[in-house]
Amino acid sequence: MANKKNMRISYPSSEKIYIPGVNNNIKVGMRKIRLLDTVTLDENGERVFKKNNPVIVYDTSGPYSDPKIPIDITKGLPRLREEWYSKRKDVVQLTELSSAYGRERLADPSLDALRFPQRHLPLRAKEGKNITQMYYAKRRIITPEMEYVAIRENQQIEALGLKSYITPEFVRKEVAAGRAIIPANINHPEAEPMIIGKKFLVKINTNIGNSALSSGIDEEIEKAIWSCKWGGDTLMDLSTGENIHETREWIIRNCPVPMGTVPIYQALEKVNGKVEDLSWEIYRDTLIEQAEQGVDYFTIHAGLLRKYVELTETRLTGIVSRGGSIMAKWMHIHGEENFLYTHFADICEILKTYDVAVSIGDGLRPGSIYDANDAAQFAELHTMGELTKIAWEQFVQVIIEGPGHVPLNKIHENMKEQLYACHGAPFYTLGPLTTDIAPGYDHITSAIGAAQIAWQGTAMICYVTPKEHLGLPNKEDVRNGVVAYKIAAHAADLAKGHPGAQVRDNALSKARADFRWKDQFNLALDPGRALQYYKESAVTDGEYCTMCGPNFCAMKLSKDLHCNK
Amino acid sequence: MANKKNMRISYPSSEKIYIPGVNNNIKVGMRKIRLLDTVTLDENGERVFKKNNPVIVYDTSGPYSDPKIPIDITKGLPRLREEWYSKRKDVVQLTELSSAYGRERLADPSLDALRFPQRHLPLRAKEGKNITQMYYAKRRIITPEMEYVAIRENQQIEALGLKSYITPEFVRKEVAAGRAIIPANINHPEAEPMIIGKKFLVKINTNIGNSALSSGIDEEIEKAIWSCKWGGDTLMDLSTGENIHETREWIIRNCPVPMGTVPIYQALEKVNGKVEDLSWEIYRDTLIEQAEQGVDYFTIHAGLLRKYVELTETRLTGIVSRGGSIMAKWMHIHGEENFLYTHFADICEILKTYDVAVSIGDGLRPGSIYDANDAAQFAELHTMGELTKIAWEQFVQVIIEGPGHVPLNKIHENMKEQLYACHGAPFYTLGPLTTDIAPGYDHITSAIGAAQIAWQGTAMICYVTPKEHLGLPNKEDVRNGVVAYKIAAHAADLAKGHPGAQVRDNALSKARADFRWKDQFNLALDPGRALQYYKESAVTDGEYCTMCGPNFCAMKLSKDLHCNK
Repeated sequence: MANKKNMRISYPSSEKIYIPGVNNNIKVGMRKIRLLDTVTLDENGERVFKKNNPVIVYDTSGPYSDPKIPIDITKGLPRLREEWYSKRKDVVQLTELSSAYGRERLADPSLDALRFPQRHLPLRAKEGKNITQMYYAKRRIITPEMEYVAIRENQQIEALGLKSYITPEFVRKEVAAGRAIIPANINHPEAEPMIIGKKFLVKINTNIGNSALSSGIDEEIEKAIWSCKWGGDTLMDLSTGENIHETREWIIRNCPVPMGTVPIYQALEKVNGKVEDLSWEIYRDTLIEQAEQGVDYFTIHAGLLRKYVELTETRLTGIVSRGGSIMAKWMHIHGEENFLYTHFADICEILKTYDVAVSIGDGLRPGSIYDANDAAQFAELHTMGELTKIAWEQFVQVIIEGPGHVPLNKIHENMKEQLYACHGAPFYTLGPLTTDIAPGYDHITSAIGAAQIAWQGTAMICYVTPKEHLGLPNKEDVRNGVVAYKIAAHAADLAKGHPGAQVRDNALSKARADFRWKDQFNLALDPGRALQYYKESAVTDGEYCTMCGPNFCAMKLSKDLHCNK
Repeated sequence: MANKKNMRISYPSSEKIYIPGVNNNIKVGMRKIRLLDTVTLDENGERVFKKNNPVIVYDTSGPYSDPKIPIDITKGLPRLREEWYSKRKDVVQLTELSSAYGRERLADPSLDALRFPQRHLPLRAKEGKNITQMYYAKRRIITPEMEYVAIRENQQIEALGLKSYITPEFVRKEVAAGRAIIPANINHPEAEPMIIGKKFLVKINTNIGNSALSSGIDEEIEKAIWSCKWGGDTLMDLSTGENIHETREWIIRNCPVPMGTVPIYQALEKVNGKVEDLSWEIYRDTLIEQAEQGVDYFTIHAGLLRKYVELTETRLTGIVSRGGSIMAKWMHIHGEENFLYTHFADICEILKTYDVAVSIGDGLRPGSIYDANDAAQFAELHTMGELTKIAWEQFVQVIIEGPGHVPLNKIHENMKEQLYACHGAPFYTLGPLTTDIAPGYDHITSAIGAAQIAWQGTAMICYVTPKEHLGLPNKEDVRNGVVAYKIAAHAADLAKGHPGAQVRDNALSKARADFRWKDQFNLALDPGRALQYYKESAVTDGEYCTMCGPNFCAMKLSKDLHCNK
């Protein structure tokens, strides 16, 4: 395994800039898009040039877009946050892995060729110490992570010379109240801090991962970086195939955004797919194994109680969550309560040791319009609220997963019920898809629902690709899914009136009115595609294009009008 | 010109069926999708087959999907509605074209090769008679068109054995009140009647048309049929290039859905693109020319008053409507009021003669998020309301065009203001786009807004393709745009609780739960694409696929669970 591909990310007319912290020795990477001058004619017909301020945008591409930082997949990304911990006396480095499975994999020489070449011993909290961002926040400590995200969220506002309400102290308060989380496992120092909460920019998650017979490690790393390029804020590795442990190590070491997993998937692989053989012990070891690799958040389907399963019998599409169906089957076979529920406090004990956040999984999310907002779904939601309180007792950061398939008119009820039942913990939804009838276009059916629910307060939306319900996404599907979700998230940011959100829209629209075509492409969410479509069909002399031709260009006519006055 | 291409439309596992009228000799074409049986195992492990009812869906493909009807582009479609008129004593056939320009083109031998080979003399209302659907409706006459659309809107409901509120009398009432229109020029008998109103299924419009240097007639006809295949309910021909008159004739004679135009475009071509030379006389002749060809609705930018132009000076993107910018320039040059406004009653005199509906154009629609819901936009909207009343005095059917670019949080105000200002006339919006930053994906930025505004009561949404702002759409762009808008329209129908709308969703979701893959594709809005994506990436034995593999298929686990009970 030695990936020699060029993994660099570049954006046209853009440069990587860094904004330094005030109270911490941090620097926050952003993308600055340079714009051309606006050209007009003065009374004598002479060209007059007027500067346009560059636009600074949120940047998820990490070191990949900084030409000054060398990229070598076999070495991993710079360990950005490692030095921040050295100032914390509550963390200790281990001398070996705590997970039996982790040690076993490490000792297996047949895996040498597959294994990530660098080895970093994991960190954990010292005995009796709590190190979560929520804990610090409640102790009124502003961590470097909090200052980092405050700067990161503010770029467009400060570029306008305005003061934003999003200060490090504001971030601290939101994290302390549980209304926002900063997923930041201390064993994933490569990740740039980001925040998930309804008062911040709406975030998007992308899913990657191989299944039994599909893609290899190279391809998964490429997809991960590709997702960051297009704007993915977090990344879930949903692999269910072979060598999950080794694949994950490669991805985390090269991943500049927080990474999530669904640990039950790997636990099930460990018992060869036999649900009946799953146990708390195997699951527990899997949590520790993954936490020490650096997974930033775990999806845990702990809210699906035994008594709720019968509520799904009248459903059209039953249980469509993989984790949910696994736990339902396990409960059925063993005649016992969901061990993720009964051991939830034990789980939180582990999570807080590394500051892994919990994303409480919605095992009973509706898989069709017909099943939306039914008794099963809302019963589980209320148990998720109960679990939120258990996690918060140990200062574990919590997000709540949501549906699924929901028609537009039932979306509001989801948001309202979630805020009420889960005490304001951030909502993280998959879409929702607003109709079932468009397989092949579910990035669109769901972007409609995602924009709606994000506007109403959902903090993070999980992307859906055009291949949803049909197969595993390839790179092009990932691109289409991420861009559709960046659109939904941004539409929600605008609708929420998020400060500064409109700066990029205004800049692009001004470029449009000025016929600065190049700036329109450079400011677009996907500059390459905009340019490609333009080239495919347009012939222009800079003042109009084939869309309307010279006599029918509204912008030109409108401009002439005001100039002639 | 002799198009030999096969223009047939076929849908998988589907057949064309016809539902007869009760009071009129009409038959309404629909698409029946056959489904496979659900297969389960009984206690002895024997396979048990259970029938699934076919799903009947609204069908915009006209005769193209009926193998029993011969298709010949050079002959045009069957003249479906012609015999309906023979029963009306208020219509007369002309002996020659009323438009001077029309006669001139007809007499020009150099156009012989280009001209549609069949000739039909136009019909018009007899002197002193009114023949519009609104007039009949107000006279309490239920036309065949009204019964046709009632049947057409009801297919899914009656397939369920239910009685719908959408009766011919209900249709009549809505048309009489001006809350719905049936665009049905008596000179376009090839078009199957359809209804646009907020109490009916949300409709979508597609735009085609060449510009100065782009596509030819063949290609335009192909795009028109292609649009009908994917579900376009109406079609606007926005051509601005050469031979508009002849191109339009070919399209109308082969178009099974109502067609709209923006007559000012052709009027401007007639004066060689010189806005200053536009006049009421040229425009008037253009209206008559197009009305006698069979255009079903005209977009007329009559609400843009002289005094409103200055309201656009502070805009970021000025006037972005082509028609609007032309009229603004004309007013500026001549120092006169918009002649479309001053002559609006004269215009309605012409329209009612053929039952052409008017789509009052929003010349001041916002072209950017920044300009949304501004004074210019709403000033024009109120004038559009005033014009609505003028049109209704002559029983001319009216729809009102709307934006444009509007963030999600400002969409509701648009709908509310339109309903108030325009006395309940149907709203017909272009998107709106909910952000400006995604050129190349504006079918998605706008599908989000279109679903939202349609849910709130917009009756028809005008599609936007991925090429919006970048170039003219090709066939693949048309497909992507139409499907995105079918999704938005259907999401709105579900959200409005339109009776029967959910039948197709339920059938598709049941097919999903049953692992009837073929039925999932056949029920999809785009069966071909769903199948293609599935084949690209999936390997299945009918019970699971590569997405999750055998151990992680939630549907299978969930099914086993309830079967094992």
